[in-house]
Amino acid sequence: MEAWFFENQTGNFGIKIRIKSILYHENSDFQEISVYDTYEFGKMLVLDNAVMFTDSNEFIYHEMLSFIPLFAHKKPENILIIGGGDGGIIRECLKNNFVKHIDLVEIDGEVIEVSKRFFPQIASQIDNKKVSVKLEDGIKYLKTVNNIYDIIIIDSTDPVGPAEGLFTKDFYESAYNALKEDGIFAAQTESPFFNKKLIKDVNHIINNIYKISMMYYAMIPVYPSGLWSFTVGSKKYQPNKINEVYKNIDLSSLDLKYYSQEIHMSSFILPKFIKELLN
Amino acid sequence: MEAWFFENQTGNFGIKIRIKSILYHENSDFQEISVYDTYEFGKMLVLDNAVMFTDSNEFIYHEMLSFIPLFAHKKPENILIIGGGDGGIIRECLKNNFVKHIDLVEIDGEVIEVSKRFFPQIASQIDNKKVSVKLEDGIKYLKTVNNIYDIIIIDSTDPVGPAEGLFTKDFYESAYNALKEDGIFAAQTESPFFNKKLIKDVNHIINNIYKISMMYYAMIPVYPSGLWSFTVGSKKYQPNKINEVYKNIDLSSLDLKYYSQEIHMSSFILPKFIKELLN
Repeated sequence: MEAWFFENQTGNFGIKIRIKSILYHENSDFQEISVYDTYEFGKMLVLDNAVMFTDSNEFIYHEMLSFIPLFAHKKPENILIIGGGDGGIIRECLKNNFVKHIDLVEIDGEVIEVSKRFFPQIASQIDNKKVSVKLEDGIKYLKTVNNIYDIIIIDSTDPVGPAEGLFTKDFYESAYNALKEDGIFAAQTESPFFNKKLIKDVNHIINNIYKISMMYYAMIPVYPSGLWSFTVGSKKYQPNKINEVYKNIDLSSLDLKYYSQEIHMSSFILPKFIKELLN
Repeated sequence: MEAWFFENQTGNFGIKIRIKSILYHENSDFQEISVYDTYEFGKMLVLDNAVMFTDSNEFIYHEMLSFIPLFAHKKPENILIIGGGDGGIIRECLKNNFVKHIDLVEIDGEVIEVSKRFFPQIASQIDNKKVSVKLEDGIKYLKTVNNIYDIIIIDSTDPVGPAEGLFTKDFYESAYNALKEDGIFAAQTESPFFNKKLIKDVNHIINNIYKISMMYYAMIPVYPSGLWSFTVGSKKYQPNKINEVYKNIDLSSLDLKYYSQEIHMSSFILPKFIKELLN
């Protein structure tokens, strides 16, 4: 059998992944949710026909979006995740012993249910007692909170459909206000090859709001171009440095497959054409 | 019109690129050569249905396969390129002022002709007076030379078809003998996501032959997984360090779009799962 999943990642470029079976396919109130079993990558979550993650490489995105802000912060006790209903960011955040509480604000409860059912190793900590799940709109939620989070992580889909408002100045300002005086903000910000304007615009906005703004990257084979960017805004700490409180930490017990202390720093060293994009 | 080029990069994963036109399509004595014009990436060279490069991102592969060995070496005067008939590696090597002579050993003369015709900005220096083109088998050629090159660069296709013999112990030993006592060898060695066994094997062999062996990477959106590895063997110099003779060099006149002194070093810092692959 040759059955293939296709994703048009731009109008003119796409990927194809050979599938064993379609495990789930439903329209929620917000988006089309599909789960495939694939030959190359194991099981795969797809929202509105865009690959979110696969079993075999979800660790890259989840480690890198979590650990960079977490290990730059001196004492990240109270975390907000917007999106991230699959639970991957929660799982990684709980590896940092400072973390006392995580609010997960996910607009689509069906993503959580699907993840618990098909990706139990990713959703494993959603019901942890340190986690509160709020099924609501992250944009509206952020306007109701002030000066309470150490870290805010935006684990969103692409800037079309439900996630569109998560890439605006208004939203970034709300996040700034929801952070404490030494807070750190981190968001996935698409491909430096295919989304140049978005990256330039987001960096410009974050740069105007935060004392320190930086971009870093990770290599994720199922995402458009394989190269993915993250933008971080920080009120106090240098995001590209591991905070000195972790100087003697032993990472070997944390089940990390991508992140290391060396990678923390090198992920901020951008190829020349990307660096120039941000100037 | 919706016309697409498809490449199966593994049996279970592939890419599709929307094309404007097929500019060239012939079978040479060694392989199928095609040139497409695409919407996303400009013109594109394809050998045996695998994308070699596109106008919009060829700089990444060519800069990174050339500049790492070149700027690790104290005085790279005499260079051997095996493969590389498109001329991209020649163009980059000639940016280093120490380079006095380049031998290009390409088995397929039609690649050179096609590149001159369709990619003049890549082939621009093939006729430079410092360059000798030899239309012959690189494996046989290497057995005829001893202790004469400062740097050997293997710019090959995938390890199937004409390039198969370029990934063997026998070949790497010939290359070692062809290098001077402080020579450096560098080769493209496929994707760390899709070619784990090959990378492990090649690194093991290079490690047994050379005093110093290392792997580095670059992010190339049209190659399988978007992440590409290069393996370097060195008789004397640390490949991950820029040689001190270049300490005060001004790179700004060299038309570089990916490589920088920071990138030289950070490209050797591998994600944990890749680092572990090499142990």
